[in-house]
Amino acid sequence: MLYDFTYHNPTKIYFGKDAMSKLPSELNSYGKNILFLYGKNSIKKIGLYDEVKRVLNECGKNVIELAGIKSNPSYAQVLKGGKLVRENKIDFILAVGGGSVIDCAKAISVSAYAKGDAWQRYWIDFEDVDNEIVPVGSILTMTGTASEMNGGSVITNEEVTIKAGRVYGPEVNPKFSILNPEFTYTVPKIQMVSGVFDVMSHLMEQYFSGDDDNTTDYVIEAVMKSLIKSARKAVENPEDYEARSNIMWCATLGLNTVTGLSKTQDWEVHDIEHQLGAYTDCPHGLGLAVISMPYYRYIYKEGIDKFVRFAENVWGVDTTGKTKDEIALEGIACLEGFAKELGIPLTLRELGATKEMLSKIAESAYEGGGYKYMTHEDILKVLKECF
Amino acid sequence: MLYDFTYHNPTKIYFGKDAMSKLPSELNSYGKNILFLYGKNSIKKIGLYDEVKRVLNECGKNVIELAGIKSNPSYAQVLKGGKLVRENKIDFILAVGGGSVIDCAKAISVSAYAKGDAWQRYWIDFEDVDNEIVPVGSILTMTGTASEMNGGSVITNEEVTIKAGRVYGPEVNPKFSILNPEFTYTVPKIQMVSGVFDVMSHLMEQYFSGDDDNTTDYVIEAVMKSLIKSARKAVENPEDYEARSNIMWCATLGLNTVTGLSKTQDWEVHDIEHQLGAYTDCPHGLGLAVISMPYYRYIYKEGIDKFVRFAENVWGVDTTGKTKDEIALEGIACLEGFAKELGIPLTLRELGATKEMLSKIAESAYEGGGYKYMTHEDILKVLKECF
Repeated sequence: MLYDFTYHNPTKIYFGKDAMSKLPSELNSYGKNILFLYGKNSIKKIGLYDEVKRVLNECGKNVIELAGIKSNPSYAQVLKGGKLVRENKIDFILAVGGGSVIDCAKAISVSAYAKGDAWQRYWIDFEDVDNEIVPVGSILTMTGTASEMNGGSVITNEEVTIKAGRVYGPEVNPKFSILNPEFTYTVPKIQMVSGVFDVMSHLMEQYFSGDDDNTTDYVIEAVMKSLIKSARKAVENPEDYEARSNIMWCATLGLNTVTGLSKTQDWEVHDIEHQLGAYTDCPHGLGLAVISMPYYRYIYKEGIDKFVRFAENVWGVDTTGKTKDEIALEGIACLEGFAKELGIPLTLRELGATKEMLSKIAESAYEGGGYKYMTHEDILKVLKECF
Repeated sequence: MLYDFTYHNPTKIYFGKDAMSKLPSELNSYGKNILFLYGKNSIKKIGLYDEVKRVLNECGKNVIELAGIKSNPSYAQVLKGGKLVRENKIDFILAVGGGSVIDCAKAISVSAYAKGDAWQRYWIDFEDVDNEIVPVGSILTMTGTASEMNGGSVITNEEVTIKAGRVYGPEVNPKFSILNPEFTYTVPKIQMVSGVFDVMSHLMEQYFSGDDDNTTDYVIEAVMKSLIKSARKAVENPEDYEARSNIMWCATLGLNTVTGLSKTQDWEVHDIEHQLGAYTDCPHGLGLAVISMPYYRYIYKEGIDKFVRFAENVWGVDTTGKTKDEIALEGIACLEGFAKELGIPLTLRELGATKEMLSKIAESAYEGGGYKYMTHEDILKVLKECF
C-alpha cells in the first residue's frame, strides 16, 4: 500500500563554491533587524564570521548576535533568542553553523511570539503554531541533520532532561540555505563522521518500514550508496570537493522529506538517541551508530525481506547459497564495518554513558517503532547490547 | 567536477486517492475568476469534469472554460487563452489533464500580459518574463512530462512549424498539483507507454552527461529502476495502484529538476523529437523512443564509462568477460527490449514521418548535445537509422 502524501518544500538551496554570492539579494528581501545566530568559534576560524558581518554591513542591516548555540541546543537558549527577537523587533534570523544552530533558529522563530508555554505547546503537545513566525535563513557549515531544508527542530530542555524533536510545516523551513561544501573542510573528523552516520540513520529510519515496492525505497538506496562511497573518500581526503559535495547533498536529500514520501517510517533509533543525548550530550550521529546495529539485529526478523534487500542493493552482498537470515545479518555487519571504517566508537561506554543511565534512557524513550513494536523493556535490552 | 546549482521548487504536491479533497482550500487562496483548461473528452469520461465543476461552483467561482487543448499545444491556443484571461480578468488558471494542458496553461500564464511578441521574446529569445504572471494549478490525468512540478512549457507554433520548449523560473511552476494515480487508469495504453518512455528519456538526457561521481546519478538510476519495474506491471494490469503510483511519482521526480542537479545534461533526443513532433504530431514519448536507441548507439563511445554503468546499475547486465563496448551495447539493447515490451513502435515510418521530412527535421534541430557534439549531418545520420 502506498500512502497519500503532501510534498511541499519551498526552501531555496544555493549550492556550491559561489553560493555565498547569493546572500545579499536574499537578505535584501527582508527588513533591517537581523538576529545572527552561531555556535562556537569555528565560523571565525574559517573566516566566515567576518564574511557574514561584511555582507550584513554592506546590506545596511542592524545586527544582533547570539553566539554559543550548543550542539544539543537548549530551551534556555531558545528563550534567550526569543527575548532578543522581541526586544529588537527582529525581521530575520540568520543561522550560521550546523543543524543545531539552524534547529535553534527555527525554535526561536516559532516561539518568540508564542502565547503561553511554547515548550509544552509546540514540542510536547505538538500544537499548531498560531503566532507570527520570524523568517529564518541558513549558511551551513556542517552536514547531517538536513535542518537546512526542513521544518524540524530538536531542542533539549535541560530543566526536565528531555530532548524533543518536532517537525513543523513548510512555513518554518529556512527561506534559503547556502551550502558551500568547502565550509565543511575544517569540521573535525569525529564530527564529520557523526554527521555521515546521522544521514545514514535518517535514511534507514525511513527505509526500514513497509513491505511495499515504493519509488522512495529506490531513492533511499541511491542516496545511501552515494553517501557510503563519498564518506569513504572524504575520510581519506577531507578536501575532496566532489566527496564533500555529495555528502552535503545526500544529507539534505536524506531528510528534506523526499526520502520519506509514502513511507510509514520508524524513528525508534533517533528517539532512543535523543534520550541518550539528553543524559550524555554525546554527538548525535555517534549515539545513533552505537544504537543502530544492536537495534537492527533485535528487530530484523520482523522485516526480513527489507533487510535482505538492504544487504543486496546497498552493500552488494553476494546472496548465493545463503539463507535470508544470513543475508540480512551480513547487511547489518556491512553497516557495522562501515561505521568502524569511519572510526566511530561502538559502545555506549565510550560515549560517556553509565550503566545507571540505561534504564532511565529506556524509560524516557518512546514505545513504538517500525517493523517491531518496542516496549521500554525491549529498548532496555537493546541498550544493554550497546553498552 | 560538480557544478554549482540553485534548487527551488515551491510547487505543493497532493498525492494519492484522496488528493482531490485539497482542491477547495487551494482554490480559496485565489480570486473568483477561473480559467478552466482541459483537452478532449477524457476528463468527462472519468467524471472528473463534473467533479471539478462541482468544486468550482461550491467555491463560488466564475468559470471560463477553454477546451480542446491539443497534445502538442499550439501557440494559437495560447493566444486564445491569453485573450480570455484579459477579457475576464482571470485570477487563476486551473489546468486539468496531462502535460500538454499544463504546458499550455503556463504559456497562457506568462504571455497573457506580455509586452510585444511573447513567442519571440519568451520561447525564441529566452527573455526574462517582465509582466504579471497569472497563477496556475493543475490536476494531473496523464503522467510523463513533470509539467505538474516544473516551470517548463513546450509550445508548437504552427505558423512557422517550430516546437519550442522553455523552462521558466519557479514563479511559473504550478502553485499546487493534484496527483491521483487512479485518474490515469483509463489513459489508453499507447499514451501510457508514451508517457513512460518520456520519463525514461528525461532521466537519460540528464544521466548521460559528465564523468563525475554525482549523487544525482545514483538518484536517476533509482528512479529508472522503479519506473521500469512498475511500467512492466502496469502494462499487465493498468489498475495496479502501486505501479501507477510509482510511475506517476517517477514522472514528477524525473523532471522536477532534482534529477538534473549539478549535471550538464544532454537533451539532444528531446530536441530532435520536438522537430519530429512539429512535422508529424506523433505522441512525444513514442518519438523519443524511436530516436533514442540509434542516437545512443551513435554517441556511446564518447561516454562509454557511463553507458557501462547504465548497463550494470540499471539493467543488471552481467559484465563477466565482456568488453566495455559489449557491455554498453548490451545496456542499449536492454533499453530497446524494454520499449518493445511496452509495445512501442520503433521506426519513424510507423509514426507517420516521410523520407522527405528527415532532412528538414535534421536542419531545424539544435546542433549540440552531451557526450558528442551533434551537427545537422550527424542528426540526419541518426534519423536515417530510425527510419
